[in-house]
Amino acid sequence: MTQEIIVDPSVFVPNPQRQRYAQVITAALAAVDPYTCVRHHLQRVGDHIRCGGRIINLGQVRRIYVLGFGKAAGPMAQAVEDVLGERITEGLVIVKEGHHVPTRRVRVREAAHPVPDERSVDAARELLRLARQAGPEDMVVVLISGGGSALFTLPAEDLTLTDLQQTTDLLLKSGATIHEINTVRKHCSAVKGGWLAHHLAPATTIGLILSDVVGNPLDVIASGPLSPDPTTYADAWQVLEKYELVERIPPAVRDHLQAGRQGRRPETPKPDDPLFEQVHLIIVGDNARAAEAAAREALALGYNAEVLTTFLEGEAREVARVVAALAKEVSRHHRPLPPPACLILGGETTVTVRGSGKGGRNQELALAAAIALAGWPHITLIALGTDGTDGPTDAAGGMVDGQTVARAHALGLDPLVHLRENNAYPLLHAVHDLVKTGPTRTNVNDLIFLFVEEGTSPHV
Amino acid sequence: MTQEIIVDPSVFVPNPQRQRYAQVITAALAAVDPYTCVRHHLQRVGDHIRCGGRIINLGQVRRIYVLGFGKAAGPMAQAVEDVLGERITEGLVIVKEGHHVPTRRVRVREAAHPVPDERSVDAARELLRLARQAGPEDMVVVLISGGGSALFTLPAEDLTLTDLQQTTDLLLKSGATIHEINTVRKHCSAVKGGWLAHHLAPATTIGLILSDVVGNPLDVIASGPLSPDPTTYADAWQVLEKYELVERIPPAVRDHLQAGRQGRRPETPKPDDPLFEQVHLIIVGDNARAAEAAAREALALGYNAEVLTTFLEGEAREVARVVAALAKEVSRHHRPLPPPACLILGGETTVTVRGSGKGGRNQELALAAAIALAGWPHITLIALGTDGTDGPTDAAGGMVDGQTVARAHALGLDPLVHLRENNAYPLLHAVHDLVKTGPTRTNVNDLIFLFVEEGTSPHV
Repeated sequence: MTQEIIVDPSVFVPNPQRQRYAQVITAALAAVDPYTCVRHHLQRVGDHIRCGGRIINLGQVRRIYVLGFGKAAGPMAQAVEDVLGERITEGLVIVKEGHHVPTRRVRVREAAHPVPDERSVDAARELLRLARQAGPEDMVVVLISGGGSALFTLPAEDLTLTDLQQTTDLLLKSGATIHEINTVRKHCSAVKGGWLAHHLAPATTIGLILSDVVGNPLDVIASGPLSPDPTTYADAWQVLEKYELVERIPPAVRDHLQAGRQGRRPETPKPDDPLFEQVHLIIVGDNARAAEAAAREALALGYNAEVLTTFLEGEAREVARVVAALAKEVSRHHRPLPPPACLILGGETTVTVRGSGKGGRNQELALAAAIALAGWPHITLIALGTDGTDGPTDAAGGMVDGQTVARAHALGLDPLVHLRENNAYPLLHAVHDLVKTGPTRTNVNDLIFLFVEEGTSPHV
Repeated sequence: MTQEIIVDPSVFVPNPQRQRYAQVITAALAAVDPYTCVRHHLQRVGDHIRCGGRIINLGQVRRIYVLGFGKAAGPMAQAVEDVLGERITEGLVIVKEGHHVPTRRVRVREAAHPVPDERSVDAARELLRLARQAGPEDMVVVLISGGGSALFTLPAEDLTLTDLQQTTDLLLKSGATIHEINTVRKHCSAVKGGWLAHHLAPATTIGLILSDVVGNPLDVIASGPLSPDPTTYADAWQVLEKYELVERIPPAVRDHLQAGRQGRRPETPKPDDPLFEQVHLIIVGDNARAAEAAAREALALGYNAEVLTTFLEGEAREVARVVAALAKEVSRHHRPLPPPACLILGGETTVTVRGSGKGGRNQELALAAAIALAGWPHITLIALGTDGTDGPTDAAGGMVDGQTVARAHALGLDPLVHLRENNAYPLLHAVHDLVKTGPTRTNVNDLIFLFVEEGTSPHV
């Protein structure tokens, strides 16, 4: 059932070293395959299931519902079906259009992403009907993955989808932080900010989460439908005031939030709400899991390996320089590990687009790293998006080394010009330094691998 | 003789934790004190001196000359005097104005920095006269430190100081890389690019170098007066052509380089020149030495400690985010070291100035890190310039933690606004997060310390 991801060996400069690196990438991606992740965390032993350190006796469970939303909800549902089979009463998962997969008991509905449409709302309403059927003796497995916030959209009953979209647009343009935007959104939704958990109570709820948010903040992933919301209507109102949006948002939203802060609407479920005692959230896959699998594979291949961070953020071209500096230390001073070494960093960088070229954040990071590493013969850096895509290109990222710049120069290409124009793709393509995996159907952000082989480092 | 550097405890929020951190900073700075560094690497045992793993029998040395240039040349000369005493025949060091120190046998001359003046040229000429006196049985100790390139300036005999300055200005504005600029400069100088070594031959030459260039490239520090020059007149000419400067540089420089590439002037000494067999270069102090001393002190205080890099570069505010990501991993996943941990990074960041505020690259890095670390209770980041100065301020850098942003908000200060305006100083001052050391009389670039104490990390 699990899809095999293979780094396309025809793309990059082929040599035994790079073949090994491709093996490490493959191991990382395999570890966060959504189907595999769910199977790993939801195991059946006879009439019991083991789930995140908890044993549940299926003999005491009346009905089992499987609900889900997110780009990976299809294979996650397949995994639950393969574990729970005929014990599943009914189910519904909402996936991005084109992501339909065959299932047996769980219905699959497609909706729009990243901008939600009426199909999202219809599907969310249907999902909520199922949720409300669950009683105290029932169990609900909720599958959450990246894209879940858009795919599982249901405005509060006095608001429309258009109200929500206009409000989000205004907030995005206002300069509000993502935390502030979410504070408002949770207070305009019927399902986010813990409301889905509210509707599922008092059933036992198992949330299986494939995290695409750096640091796995449970109240942020898919806007936290199963997590208590520490923010209030008053906080949401303050955000509107801070960015002078009170008079600019749709009147229905203004009335809704006004009613809320005056106590005329129920608050989102708060951390002390006893309903969350029945909710068990398990991160089944995340950036750390991918990074750790890569480290294990690198160790097996004879590398000293360590995960240095899973919280990486910053402007891609600048992150590249810092990461290159870490590799140089390994090569020159054998710290924090001696060569042959593999250092792994995960997270998500950003690109401030200034040029009009073709690329993605990982390709741009790789190109900038190639410039910083020029002349360092034993260092290779790989940056890739774990979903197999990077910007509007067919590549997942780039694999560069101390000779990349020289190879580019030999072809008459200037890496500095390509970097300035946000035009990494054509250069990496020309020097055979792209990494292609095809769509991986998972997403746990980006990974950066630094491989440092043994050998004398230059005094440059 | 060594100057004690103490982190001013009245500046920052005082608590036992921060007192410990100040101790680590103090240890780092003490380790790169110029006097201490020279004493550490130049030791006398009876009639022998031990220097960088080499034993020299002073009984076989006729005369000893001590030459030097750079901001730290004064205390370095004092150290050599304390080791070699009456054995020193004669000496001259060129220091920045205001950096005069009392010496016994070595003369100290002051010159302008960073823009060289006629005093630099006069002093360089005098230094070269001494250099040429050295014969095959003589030994010359050459002391090199930051600022040496400007303080030891001598144009090739057919050029003037003004010629050099105009050429440098044009190159700086052209977008040429530092490597390209140096290629031209070395071919216009009578002392750089290995020429000083040429003039010293055949004397035994010991170069003691306090490095202020990331990675310690010997041909770059002070423009490599004792190092072979791999570049040629033809390379220098190509740089002029690439940036369309052939018609714009002073005619004397054009004629000089033209003559050189036509073989009518001698090339700079090349790596295969046997003269370098008599030249022994020793890095007596650098960023790595400071970082390693800090790690030892942190270990002594009970911290797990590691130097992660001494090659750090990049835009300060972006470097901050990556470094913060490393600290978060320690706090959350106990990698690469478990708390209590001290990670150390060294190098030199840059700031693209967009605002009109007050600060420096280390203060800006600290402020950006404070934003990235807001709410992480157990993490402290310190960034400082090892010379004790950071931008046009009286601070060396900043010491921020997970509460810095909250402290700023409590005072009505917005860290994002201060960051946007390159205005870190007033905010760090207000929240008591500046680090002040006073002038340290050394410079091995910048250091960043990440301290992570034990405790539960937040899910933010």
